Amino acid sequence: MVEIRTPIHVNEAIRRVMSYAIAGPKTYVAIEDSLGHYLGEDLIADHDVPAFDRSPYDGFAIRAEDTLDASKGYPIKLEVIGEIGAGDVFEDEVQANKAVRIMTGAQIPNGCDAVIMLEHVELLEHVELLEHDRKTFIQLERRLRTNENITRKGEDTRQGEILVKKGTYINPGVMALLATFGYKQVPVIQKPKVGIISTGSELLTVDAALEPGKIRDSNSYMLLGQIERAGGVPVLLGQFKDDFTLCYNQVADALGKVDILLTTGGVSVGDYDYIPAILDKLKARVLFNKVRMRPGSVTTVAAVEGKLLFGLSGNPSSCYVGFELFTRPIIRTYLQSNHPFMRREIIQLGSAFTRPNPFDRFVRGKLQYEKGQTIAVPVGLDKPNIVTSLAEADILIMLPGGGEVYEKGMEVTAILLEDQTGATMDSFMHGPVNY
Amino acid sequence: MVEIRTPIHVNEAIRRVMSYAIAGPKTYVAIEDSLGHYLGEDLIADHDVPAFDRSPYDGFAIRAEDTLDASKGYPIKLEVIGEIGAGDVFEDEVQANKAVRIMTGAQIPNGCDAVIMLEHVELLEHVELLEHDRKTFIQLERRLRTNENITRKGEDTRQGEILVKKGTYINPGVMALLATFGYKQVPVIQKPKVGIISTGSELLTVDAALEPGKIRDSNSYMLLGQIERAGGVPVLLGQFKDDFTLCYNQVADALGKVDILLTTGGVSVGDYDYIPAILDKLKARVLFNKVRMRPGSVTTVAAVEGKLLFGLSGNPSSCYVGFELFTRPIIRTYLQSNHPFMRREIIQLGSAFTRPNPFDRFVRGKLQYEKGQTIAVPVGLDKPNIVTSLAEADILIMLPGGGEVYEKGMEVTAILLEDQTGATMDSFMHGPVNY
Repeated sequence: MVEIRTPIHVNEAIRRVMSYAIAGPKTYVAIEDSLGHYLGEDLIADHDVPAFDRSPYDGFAIRAEDTLDASKGYPIKLEVIGEIGAGDVFEDEVQANKAVRIMTGAQIPNGCDAVIMLEHVELLEHVELLEHDRKTFIQLERRLRTNENITRKGEDTRQGEILVKKGTYINPGVMALLATFGYKQVPVIQKPKVGIISTGSELLTVDAALEPGKIRDSNSYMLLGQIERAGGVPVLLGQFKDDFTLCYNQVADALGKVDILLTTGGVSVGDYDYIPAILDKLKARVLFNKVRMRPGSVTTVAAVEGKLLFGLSGNPSSCYVGFELFTRPIIRTYLQSNHPFMRREIIQLGSAFTRPNPFDRFVRGKLQYEKGQTIAVPVGLDKPNIVTSLAEADILIMLPGGGEVYEKGMEVTAILLEDQTGATMDSFMHGPVNY
Repeated sequence: MVEIRTPIHVNEAIRRVMSYAIAGPKTYVAIEDSLGHYLGEDLIADHDVPAFDRSPYDGFAIRAEDTLDASKGYPIKLEVIGEIGAGDVFEDEVQANKAVRIMTGAQIPNGCDAVIMLEHVELLEHVELLEHDRKTFIQLERRLRTNENITRKGEDTRQGEILVKKGTYINPGVMALLATFGYKQVPVIQKPKVGIISTGSELLTVDAALEPGKIRDSNSYMLLGQIERAGGVPVLLGQFKDDFTLCYNQVADALGKVDILLTTGGVSVGDYDYIPAILDKLKARVLFNKVRMRPGSVTTVAAVEGKLLFGLSGNPSSCYVGFELFTRPIIRTYLQSNHPFMRREIIQLGSAFTRPNPFDRFVRGKLQYEKGQTIAVPVGLDKPNIVTSLAEADILIMLPGGGEVYEKGMEVTAILLEDQTGATMDSFMHGPVNY
């Protein structure tokens, strides 16, 4: 029995999958472990920055009114009554015609309302009256305005301001902010558990010796890496059993344990493919089982009780592309990212594709540079070994389907696989516009 | 005492640092944990791929010589004597005028040397002689060549072939290859331990309540994230003590525990800056203590008994840029990456910089898209709060120093912070040429 499937456009497939996207719950991790997580709440300033009037320079804190008579050639003299290191606080109120030595970042003492830079004063040491009464003075020849060279409390950030939005990828810069505002424990979105079941009686485990007719299971480990790169927690659930009822129970069981379930293999219409029958028995809603794309046209996605089941192809490159196009944005949406899709770039095509294809193609490629131009070079075209080419790929070159022929040097879209920045659904579907 | 320092060019600073780069040792991790590590050995095929002559299609394995007389309108008939699922092996030698049903990926049985696709035959079921002797035949109307539709053993990859070079970043595609070739344990380069000591008596720990005149230490956590992103293992060593001898002992002690040591703060020529004196006492070779760049001009790098000590600025953005330019490639070279530097892209500048600067500038920026063009938009220029802008930054916009003024829309170099692809030293220094 060969079932006839109606292929749908990639963007329509993405829309259908995304209509089932859900947002994950909040949890907490230590700030030390927060890199690569997604913020679970808006990051809010718990205090003004700066938290106090601060000196941006090494110099002397003074009272602007004391400098009213100072000008070039007419110096005034102020007595230096102390010193404030960074982190120190000067306790007393500074009186008329006094100055306090102040370091960069230190708090302006009470009474002062201006700072004069170290290089704009002359230091004088006076020994007056008695030997032990040694005083230091500064002499300056310019008038200062009130608040001159003072960074005012709250000038950078006001207490209560939202600095980073919920759903933002935590990078080292965000970590600096988390530390500044005292987030020892960081609210993050819980990473989704993504289960992997591989199917195919030809598959051996990674540690097994080769046997005639068999190959080692590579898709499970590839998906494990793809899930982690996308921000999920991979759960290896082993291989399908040979018996339909056992397989069915395996899938039903797995759906209770993970947030998203992937299977690889068993989705085409060959004799040994169980997935369609399992979906049927699960009363799953099949969103699609054929997409106008190469590779990965047999990718099947279904929803069962609010959970998505991705039936990815057993062919490594089809499996890879199916995951990145459909599963990745679901994981990133779970993580509440505002940019759950992969970033695209318009770059020059490094090789011609002269045979038109009715389906959209996603060709494994590599970024290369030539005379200052970025080139999208397909990898592994000379060799059918798709696993080797996946190792080299850092982009997918998108060649829209139809009658078109693609010449070397034409501008095409490259989808970036190793980039964390991301893009919106709209930007992903319609090119790098309205990012 | 204000010391006069001679600033050197960024590229010269990079060259000096890189002359002290060392390669890390090999260790092993489980394949499940290998994502993001760097390969510690060349990845070698432990068997031919395919490991056996294989069928690329669903169809029937036959003997090409049996089809010599077949042509359009003149069918020949072959008896189907069995079936081979993926992973199965057909034990008997196939004799003249016999065929075996074969699935995609299955091993070609002995005696056969061609495969005819399922859709190119007609299936006939014959009941001959006795009721229980039910036989199946296929009928075909074309002649097949020897080896037609057979993927030959070793066609993709030969046993012993180097597939991925030592020092390659392990991505999901590399993981698929590791699984294919039985690497249950993966040889990787050991991640370098990178110590962080923060200095500054104004610093509070992240869980401390704010105190007058003080700020929470944000650089330590920012560096922690930067080290992890670069591929190192961060080791938080706390804050400097207030006393010079204690600080000296702290640094000397730390150098024995880590592969690379970072300090933040204490490198300028202010009154409270211990680092220069510590380096002196350690008899460290100071590679430079002033670079023609903004921010981060006071970045100091020294070598002590073969280990590098990076004296990064206490200013967050200076600290950030100093790390990415100088420490990151040292970590990636330790990991034996062939592309230890950040990737650059030529893109349009989103804002004008009309004041020339004698030093090279590295402006925190963000990629944005406008009408299909990628734009480098500076972040945080309107606000002096550099920590906030670091959270948003995914690029550094490079503006070479000198008399030049940069207009909006000019083509400039963007250094990509969130990209794993990397670049060579030459490509980083001289632009995206000879990648």
